[in-house]
Amino acid sequence: MSSHDESRFATGVYEARLERAAELTRNAHLDALLITPGPDLRFLLGSRAQSFERLTCLVIPASGETPSVVIPKLELASLKGSAAGELGLRVVDWVDGVDPYRIVKSVLNAGARVAVTDVMPALHLLPLAEQFGSLPVSATPLLRELRMVKDASEIEALRRAGAAIDRVHARMGEFLRAGRTEAEVGVDIAAALVEESHTEADFVIVGSGPHGADPHHLVSDRVIEDGDVVVIDIGGPVEPGYFSDSTRTYVLGEPDEEVAARFAELERAQAAAVAAVRPGVTAESIDAAARDVLAAAGLADYFVHRTGHGIGLSVHEDPYIVAGNDLVLQAGMAFSIEPGIYFPGSWGARIEDIVVVTDDGCESMNTRPHGLTRLP
Amino acid sequence: MSSHDESRFATGVYEARLERAAELTRNAHLDALLITPGPDLRFLLGSRAQSFERLTCLVIPASGETPSVVIPKLELASLKGSAAGELGLRVVDWVDGVDPYRIVKSVLNAGARVAVTDVMPALHLLPLAEQFGSLPVSATPLLRELRMVKDASEIEALRRAGAAIDRVHARMGEFLRAGRTEAEVGVDIAAALVEESHTEADFVIVGSGPHGADPHHLVSDRVIEDGDVVVIDIGGPVEPGYFSDSTRTYVLGEPDEEVAARFAELERAQAAAVAAVRPGVTAESIDAAARDVLAAAGLADYFVHRTGHGIGLSVHEDPYIVAGNDLVLQAGMAFSIEPGIYFPGSWGARIEDIVVVTDDGCESMNTRPHGLTRLP
Repeated sequence: MSSHDESRFATGVYEARLERAAELTRNAHLDALLITPGPDLRFLLGSRAQSFERLTCLVIPASGETPSVVIPKLELASLKGSAAGELGLRVVDWVDGVDPYRIVKSVLNAGARVAVTDVMPALHLLPLAEQFGSLPVSATPLLRELRMVKDASEIEALRRAGAAIDRVHARMGEFLRAGRTEAEVGVDIAAALVEESHTEADFVIVGSGPHGADPHHLVSDRVIEDGDVVVIDIGGPVEPGYFSDSTRTYVLGEPDEEVAARFAELERAQAAAVAAVRPGVTAESIDAAARDVLAAAGLADYFVHRTGHGIGLSVHEDPYIVAGNDLVLQAGMAFSIEPGIYFPGSWGARIEDIVVVTDDGCESMNTRPHGLTRLP
Repeated sequence: MSSHDESRFATGVYEARLERAAELTRNAHLDALLITPGPDLRFLLGSRAQSFERLTCLVIPASGETPSVVIPKLELASLKGSAAGELGLRVVDWVDGVDPYRIVKSVLNAGARVAVTDVMPALHLLPLAEQFGSLPVSATPLLRELRMVKDASEIEALRRAGAAIDRVHARMGEFLRAGRTEAEVGVDIAAALVEESHTEADFVIVGSGPHGADPHHLVSDRVIEDGDVVVIDIGGPVEPGYFSDSTRTYVLGEPDEEVAARFAELERAQAAAVAAVRPGVTAESIDAAARDVLAAAGLADYFVHRTGHGIGLSVHEDPYIVAGNDLVLQAGMAFSIEPGIYFPGSWGARIEDIVVVTDDGCESMNTRPHGLTRLP
């Protein structure tokens, strides 16, 4: 396929990424990077390959020699949409009966100090470690900076993902009504994600009433009632694979005074964290900005999770916006800002936008109103 | 949730599996099994947990002591549907900022020789290996027999999965018509899988005309034409998580004589392999039974993959029906029998049923006609 395929960027983007990855590997005094299917492979090669039991592995020598793709012969077609062909990578196919781990060792023709992608399963990692005679290290510290600081094309992709999920939230009145179960609402939202440009619905949280107090609740057979506060946290990938992720809190009817007052504090906390974002400050300072507002309102004990997570080709990636993370933010970093308050057995609320750090602040990928949205 | 929840079997089933897993670990002179979310966790605990970045890990000491579940506090709710509560397992929750790998080491309170599930990602495996000071081994050789030989409840679950996918094939005339793209047909089939009892559509292959010659083709924008031979290979999980997987080959209109003649050989090959299944024979003998028929017809070079794969809570698992696998079949083993013939640039065909080994042969989970099915 050509580089105009919307499933990936132009070939030059991947060429530069592969060169930079080899250089970072060299600087870390490692011999190679071994990348099996997942977000790192999509980042480095534009490949959506998903093989599990049969080894597909991109081998990037630190030496700067041409990378190889070791791949089952049956799955060669999965390379077609990637940049592997235009980049002139070596493609080494293998058939059932052959030991693919030995092939990786032989195409590498170098030392044994290798780094592997975080998603490589034990199924492949253990025989590779045996083949190389040593335990690999994680490739994430090497690739973190490359993947964490987004370029202009990636930011544009995140904007499109943000606009797509905003369109789903804008339609929430079609789906979310008293008398329906969370699961019924969830099915409709999942369909709407696909209608609104997502490749798939990756997660759909419909936390109504007391379920809203569990940040990781998904959906259930609970029937949504008049007066419920409902947390809707939804997202999925938009081509070329960048994720949306946005939470809004709705109320069916008129919120009671305490709910409205506490939600107002949450809205202030989210805005304070967004306002604190700029290059040069730490990730943990953004977490503190949200937390301090809630603490001042006596709500510290009800905000039970970190403020955010990086986002890109993975829905959760570096940088994590959490106490203890003294990483300094740079322009191009993308992450969620999503404080929440949770009252067990009663109700919960969360507001989540994805922001990208700019030269003097940040740009939000999501533009829907932040307030407690009333639905009839 | 109660043991009547259809998402898992009765608690006693998991109690027996955990005891047997500990015994097998002991026999292998290992100290513990470490199981992160995936099919092994569903097998051992009935848990559908899917956490990735934060460690959830079932720790089964070889000693027979009570297993523990190490789990993020935020994800405790994901244990509710599993057997963990009724089994009285130790639940050790952890919060952001704590080192969960150290917790695994401490709850185990035993030696360092551990086996890990095949799906454990490097993200967790590497720090666990560091914590234990040695490279783990794969748990699959230990769990293989337990997972490979299905009990009566599991066979009943596979029957339900087979009946569900048969209902989708029975409706193929609604979806598969000349003038539609493979992708359009695929979307309808995916929806039909969900309508027909599947939790989700795990894979949908619509290989029309020349695309049928690529066994791993999924769908494309190719418009299906009159006269096309079309391979439809589809499946997904049915509660409590057991997979369907069935292929039928369709033709739009009247097949030409060569297609019909070659397909008849394929039908004989598939039937010969099914007829060869019984306890006491090897997995590779089943592969040979199909391959010999095609070889006798001069079609050996067009059958480019193994004859089948085991199936259960994973769509591909042991036993693999492939040359070189001298595993002896036992009653209760479940696998696909799916020979195919592929003529690059032209057309392809495959017939696939799931069978379960019985005391004197096998039972097929799929009962749709095997012939080249004509659609208008």
